[in-house]
Amino acid sequence: MNNYSLEEHNLAANTIRGLAMDAVQAAESGHPGTPMGLADISVVLWRRYLKHNPQQPDWFDRDRFVLSAGHASMLVYSLLHLSGYDLPLQEIKDFRQWQSNTPGHPENFVTTGIETTTGPLGQGFSNGVGMALAERWLAKRFNRPGHTIIDHHTYVIASDGDVMEGISHEVSSLAGHLGLGKLIVFYDDNKITIDGSTDLTFSEDVAARYDAYRWHTVSIDGHDPQAVIEAIEAARSETERPSLIVCRTHIGYGSPNKQDTASAHGEPLGEEEIKLTKKNLDWPLEKFYVPDKAYSVMAADTAPYDEWQTRWRAYQDAHPDLAARFEQALRGELPDGWQADIPEFEAGKSLATRASSGQVLNAIAPHVPTLLGGSGDLTGSNQTKLKGKDHLTAADFSGRYIHYGVREHGMAGMMNGMALHGGIRPYGGTFLVFSDYMRPSMRLAAMMKLPVIYVFTHDSIGLGEDGPTHQPIEQLMSLRAIPNLTVIRPADANETAVAWQAALENKSGPTALVLTRQGVPTLDRNRYAPADGLRRGAYVLSDADQPQAILLASGSEVQIALEAQQILAEQSVAARVVSMPSWVLFAAQPADYRQQVLPDGITVRVAVEAGTPFGWERFVGQAGTAVGIDRFGTSAPYQRIYEEFGLTGTAVAQAALELIS
Amino acid sequence: MNNYSLEEHNLAANTIRGLAMDAVQAAESGHPGTPMGLADISVVLWRRYLKHNPQQPDWFDRDRFVLSAGHASMLVYSLLHLSGYDLPLQEIKDFRQWQSNTPGHPENFVTTGIETTTGPLGQGFSNGVGMALAERWLAKRFNRPGHTIIDHHTYVIASDGDVMEGISHEVSSLAGHLGLGKLIVFYDDNKITIDGSTDLTFSEDVAARYDAYRWHTVSIDGHDPQAVIEAIEAARSETERPSLIVCRTHIGYGSPNKQDTASAHGEPLGEEEIKLTKKNLDWPLEKFYVPDKAYSVMAADTAPYDEWQTRWRAYQDAHPDLAARFEQALRGELPDGWQADIPEFEAGKSLATRASSGQVLNAIAPHVPTLLGGSGDLTGSNQTKLKGKDHLTAADFSGRYIHYGVREHGMAGMMNGMALHGGIRPYGGTFLVFSDYMRPSMRLAAMMKLPVIYVFTHDSIGLGEDGPTHQPIEQLMSLRAIPNLTVIRPADANETAVAWQAALENKSGPTALVLTRQGVPTLDRNRYAPADGLRRGAYVLSDADQPQAILLASGSEVQIALEAQQILAEQSVAARVVSMPSWVLFAAQPADYRQQVLPDGITVRVAVEAGTPFGWERFVGQAGTAVGIDRFGTSAPYQRIYEEFGLTGTAVAQAALELIS
Repeated sequence: MNNYSLEEHNLAANTIRGLAMDAVQAAESGHPGTPMGLADISVVLWRRYLKHNPQQPDWFDRDRFVLSAGHASMLVYSLLHLSGYDLPLQEIKDFRQWQSNTPGHPENFVTTGIETTTGPLGQGFSNGVGMALAERWLAKRFNRPGHTIIDHHTYVIASDGDVMEGISHEVSSLAGHLGLGKLIVFYDDNKITIDGSTDLTFSEDVAARYDAYRWHTVSIDGHDPQAVIEAIEAARSETERPSLIVCRTHIGYGSPNKQDTASAHGEPLGEEEIKLTKKNLDWPLEKFYVPDKAYSVMAADTAPYDEWQTRWRAYQDAHPDLAARFEQALRGELPDGWQADIPEFEAGKSLATRASSGQVLNAIAPHVPTLLGGSGDLTGSNQTKLKGKDHLTAADFSGRYIHYGVREHGMAGMMNGMALHGGIRPYGGTFLVFSDYMRPSMRLAAMMKLPVIYVFTHDSIGLGEDGPTHQPIEQLMSLRAIPNLTVIRPADANETAVAWQAALENKSGPTALVLTRQGVPTLDRNRYAPADGLRRGAYVLSDADQPQAILLASGSEVQIALEAQQILAEQSVAARVVSMPSWVLFAAQPADYRQQVLPDGITVRVAVEAGTPFGWERFVGQAGTAVGIDRFGTSAPYQRIYEEFGLTGTAVAQAALELIS
Repeated sequence: MNNYSLEEHNLAANTIRGLAMDAVQAAESGHPGTPMGLADISVVLWRRYLKHNPQQPDWFDRDRFVLSAGHASMLVYSLLHLSGYDLPLQEIKDFRQWQSNTPGHPENFVTTGIETTTGPLGQGFSNGVGMALAERWLAKRFNRPGHTIIDHHTYVIASDGDVMEGISHEVSSLAGHLGLGKLIVFYDDNKITIDGSTDLTFSEDVAARYDAYRWHTVSIDGHDPQAVIEAIEAARSETERPSLIVCRTHIGYGSPNKQDTASAHGEPLGEEEIKLTKKNLDWPLEKFYVPDKAYSVMAADTAPYDEWQTRWRAYQDAHPDLAARFEQALRGELPDGWQADIPEFEAGKSLATRASSGQVLNAIAPHVPTLLGGSGDLTGSNQTKLKGKDHLTAADFSGRYIHYGVREHGMAGMMNGMALHGGIRPYGGTFLVFSDYMRPSMRLAAMMKLPVIYVFTHDSIGLGEDGPTHQPIEQLMSLRAIPNLTVIRPADANETAVAWQAALENKSGPTALVLTRQGVPTLDRNRYAPADGLRRGAYVLSDADQPQAILLASGSEVQIALEAQQILAEQSVAARVVSMPSWVLFAAQPADYRQQVLPDGITVRVAVEAGTPFGWERFVGQAGTAVGIDRFGTSAPYQRIYEEFGLTGTAVAQAALELIS
């Protein structure tokens, strides 16, 4: 990579500072100080090291740049604009305005060149770890001697807040354990958070903490380009450990009155202070001033892209099958015949849906080499392991399983990073109740429409003795409230098989599979409707002649609804049983199908689900009722809890009879 | 404290090991290995150091013992039983059974002597930090020269999982920053998690990490009683820093075939292995064997309690007013006249509810000295600061505010610890969207019925330019789904004043105040119903003659409902506006009141709320509709987003007209 002069460096850095000040001022909201403080580091990184091609923003072997400190969005918008991405100056002038491509925090689904959506602190950091893991895993799979087609770095900029957040601990500890040597994190040690000086809250020795995680660490002056160069060189030379570059910077760099103050953090500097700052930086006062030279200094060097194209063609020639598989992986396509080995489960047998899930997963995975899963230290319980496959270690990435440790939040954030990186379909397991630990990352997966798969087992009081801390009550419904998250709670083994297929076929967002710990009967599909009905979200599992009542249920409670149907039949009440594994999938059906399943005419409706009844009003209406649990659970064998909590066929039948009378 | 022989030590430790093995075996579920590994440490701690009185379990100046590794519940049950608490051996035989006092994980609301409910990893650790903070804060306030009535330690036992979880990072970093010298954490370094060896996932140097947090650390053999004694002595001598005692232990200690294996972690050892283990430990094979000597070894030394009583009487004599205030604080009582200065807000003025919240808080706090609040680095935004009051620092705990840093989860867990400790009414602020980071701790607050108060500001798309990552959509409804959490979203300044009163008066669970960033009009209460209606959860704010429609709303959307009412009136449609700040409070009202507000006869109902419409079916029925947002938000000035998303008086009126026609 070419060298450049200090003068050129300063010109580019000041251009960024000017744009950050002006855009935030024009928007009358935003964060000017952090982009100003990070300008020097970023110019060095983007000018000298970042491997990318603004004309080919999706080039797979590009370096990944993650601005975990998402509030500093004007930094990355400036960098994208200057280096040649499709982000005209007008967009920067429209910072934070309706339908601009420069939203308040970076959104990868809005702006070309943004790798991930950041803002909630710690999330980008976790994405970066996931990306670096993905790079190494794919490199191990696809590179061949003399043919290196995957070889890129992941650069993350993290703020004080990022390293304070718990998720940073989880992913940093794991990144150190796995020796992700191509992950390079710049910690923007600017000593200021929104509340004021970091002295208020933060006196840990961050470098020492990262040493303890087995990272390579170095501390530098973040305004000294030469020091930044040396630190990056050292970090790139260190291939066995991730690197943390602690950069002492000054927030609001150059502002005579606001540098190093919290007021430079989250509000415009003010017109007067902007003038003073520009004078102080020896910079023209013109708003949104960009000297032509800044474009040439920051123009991306596309030679590496061209070289990669040459390598790629050689690879295609030498390894055509592998190249085809690689392209398929990048497209996220499922190979032909991937469903071939999915078992059909025999009726009658009692099998936990987590167990059928494990079997289905193991039937699919050999055909879908991009599936890379793990668990938050509940592998046996979640049944997420691929049989006969090793797990990843620092020394060997040929495995196909990730032991995430007790790090649910980190797992979810890393899965987002893997999905964003591409070439991998990540899945990860924990208990349903611990989805609470993962929500911030799950929300971002849903927002970014990432096709990650959550395997949530132990989905109710059915887990029994572990007690209320482990028994989800509100989680299932709370997950249903997240836009664009497909929640599926299958009723038996065959629904579970379809659920996995639906999850893999869903490329436009995350899917949560919600599975039992306890055994549930495998339904006789000769007697009942086919399990494929799951794809429509809800279906008539068992009908009756001219039904007077509809019983709705999901998961392990479907058997209870069937029992209730039986009890009602004995009292000459005809009831329909609707299995309703997925509200989202049902909502996507045409109105006439929904009407067919839940005809307006039948208002006697009882839902049964081992969770909060809150929300079931949508389907049972005010005339109906939901048998559920609106308290926390309790520790005891699960059969007893079901009985005591009134989740029984008798109780459901009784509820229907009361509605009828 | 008395000394005792190594023989006595081993007898007590083996009693615990025997009980743990037998109880888990009898329950056919549970975690035997960790209690076996922790027996030596616990015997030393409880026998020699723990200051408590089983006959006076609520004695305020007792040491706090937190088993953050809650799965090792049989450890603490054994300790409680042996040391004289009201936990008969029969309860241990009934481990994990329906309505026993020995649930799968420790529950403070079930078992006397349990300080906090643990199980979800990391939570107990955070509670311990909160307790240690509370002790120091109260000591600063109530101790007087020659009169030390508050002086106790907080002991925490943390597992590998506890220190892997992100929350442990957040609270440990802050505990180090604040120099909580009376916090002593035993890290059970047993090298085993559920998935197997910690080598799979965990190679950080935990002691070095805690050194980086500015803790005092020491590493010992956790089976060497003398080493444990020395480590505790050193930790107690260190008063300026919290202490981490890294204890190398062996999970399943004594088991010939299962010691140091994951299979000793989460399942019974098996009858045969139990026999082998007991033989190996030279222990009788009898089930649930407790030698009499074990009781005398472990009997609590109650002399410190008696001495404290003497000190307390002297304190009462010397400082009667202070003693009375102290007792009032412990009872959690609100002093007479605490509401005296709450302002009545003038109609017409536009004021964000976060701003009125800040004013109300500042009017209440001088009268309620137990109120101790803070924010997750959003103090100015949350308006949680008490004017003119300092914040806590390591050097000085006389302040009345906690800068938590960007550590939402840690904040929530610490607030639980403070509430459990007693003498403090904790509150803490962040943006509503970041409640997602706090859910695991909030759930436990709800389960434990802790009177903590969450101040969630920036409660909708009304925050504008920060964009979808910061705009809550599903959070409000998801919080409503948590049992026993009182969610209140006031409509204007005067409802906010009542909301704070309701929050403080709610002693049986947590309260979440959900507040706007943007200004909302202060309603004219001469024209509209009094704000005190908030106490009933929902009330008729503005009625009409023979209403044909009901418009329901909360928070900032109440003004939209009032606009819609006006528009409808102009079209001769009479509509009632119901302000519905709290679903939980409304559900607690008698049926006839609820009927009065929402009469069955009026089925044209439109709800409007700037969040997911999911759940509103409960009140609008299938005939009604909810105007809300079922997608993620966007970055722009908020007025524009409201307009574009159709949250306007016109749209609500239109929805009502459509239902009517």
